[in-house]
Amino acid sequence: MAKQGAGELPKYQRIAAELRAAIESGQYGPGDQLPGENQLKETHQVALMTARQALDVLKNEGIAESRKGKGVFVRAFRPVRRRGVQRLSQEVWGSGRSVWADDAADRDLVVDGIEVGEAPATEPVARVLGLEPGAAVCTRHRRFVLDGKPVLLSVSHLPAELVAGSPVTQEDTGPGGTYARLAELGHKPVRFREEVRSRMPSAAETRQLELSAGTPVMRICRTAFDGDGRAVELNEMTLDAAAYVLEYDIEA
Amino acid sequence: MAKQGAGELPKYQRIAAELRAAIESGQYGPGDQLPGENQLKETHQVALMTARQALDVLKNEGIAESRKGKGVFVRAFRPVRRRGVQRLSQEVWGSGRSVWADDAADRDLVVDGIEVGEAPATEPVARVLGLEPGAAVCTRHRRFVLDGKPVLLSVSHLPAELVAGSPVTQEDTGPGGTYARLAELGHKPVRFREEVRSRMPSAAETRQLELSAGTPVMRICRTAFDGDGRAVELNEMTLDAAAYVLEYDIEA
Repeated sequence: MAKQGAGELPKYQRIAAELRAAIESGQYGPGDQLPGENQLKETHQVALMTARQALDVLKNEGIAESRKGKGVFVRAFRPVRRRGVQRLSQEVWGSGRSVWADDAADRDLVVDGIEVGEAPATEPVARVLGLEPGAAVCTRHRRFVLDGKPVLLSVSHLPAELVAGSPVTQEDTGPGGTYARLAELGHKPVRFREEVRSRMPSAAETRQLELSAGTPVMRICRTAFDGDGRAVELNEMTLDAAAYVLEYDIEA
Repeated sequence: MAKQGAGELPKYQRIAAELRAAIESGQYGPGDQLPGENQLKETHQVALMTARQALDVLKNEGIAESRKGKGVFVRAFRPVRRRGVQRLSQEVWGSGRSVWADDAADRDLVVDGIEVGEAPATEPVARVLGLEPGAAVCTRHRRFVLDGKPVLLSVSHLPAELVAGSPVTQEDTGPGGTYARLAELGHKPVRFREEVRSRMPSAAETRQLELSAGTPVMRICRTAFDGDGRAVELNEMTLDAAAYVLEYDIEA
């Protein structure tokens, strides 16, 4: 970690670099409080604005985060481990448990908002589900909250004719959830495809997931296929990247 | 997309919101050039700095990107599709098509740098590989370049005693690569675990991957296990998130 050319950096960048080095060396560990604006102002003999900019650099890098009225802390990465393979196995949803229940170990992951409706399929949804654009689709919007913090937005799309009149169109889908109901309807999911990408959040996502600065989202598009190879569900998920590790077990 | 309270936003934010809406509506598509600083200055009757700040907002959100000497363009997401379960990806089992189409099939992904060496295992590497901290580990650093742009950094760690004297310790590992050599050594990988997360890049990652503003990285930690359940390789990958979609096929 040579500090080559550090003398040429603006002051706030030099202060940020010093704090970053202290975090990387372990001097400040995950969850530790960092020196505040006033303390940095005095230690470094700079304007308050300069001290604030230094902390902003670390916040925008996702290394530090503000807690209201408390100060700035080293971000602690305590992820939910989301197991892509085990959680989709029939043993999980086949026995009446939700696919989401496995995720949070001893932590409290709950749905705090659910909205079910019917809408015309957008072009990308129609393409994935093999429908005509504009065909009716059942949509299930949910928001998941972990220890009081929103961490996941989920929108599930299903062909409306497939699930018409079933509990899938209700808020409560019953034991085993949507996949158990699809099985009863003769469209048991036997394979899934998950596509994962990451990008910075939109303004709406930042608001809905209450994201701190410097936090990307992960996007998972999961398609469920029945035994005939028909795509029976598309689930678009948006995850707070600071809250999740995705785990996939693969047999060679 | 109600523009509630837009009148209270600073000018540069209002200009950014207008451009964002134009991009979301499709008026500017992926790869299209956006109005430049001078044009925005004239259209909106603002200072050049204000116009520049507006474009910076979009760049930091990862929606737009600068091309040197050419201007600012709508970011085009043309991902490389990385199939986590290659064995299954050979089969065509689904009727549903992908959300993010495979643009990269005909593109040119090459290793432009490789460095092989031996080093004492760090604590996390030792833990994963079941070694004593400080035990000798063979490390293989590679950088992958797509169409001339670095997109992936990969560091592979293997127990040194396992691969001593084999081509795994050479730059060229031979046909089938490291996993084929491990098989010949009696440690054929039969199972893999991939752990995926996302965060903002460090300064070093930004430099090595030549990342634009507003671009997170994805981190994949892949562990290979042999038939005895021994972890024989840990591969830590850092991906330009704007370049990749990760795909995982899962059987229920």
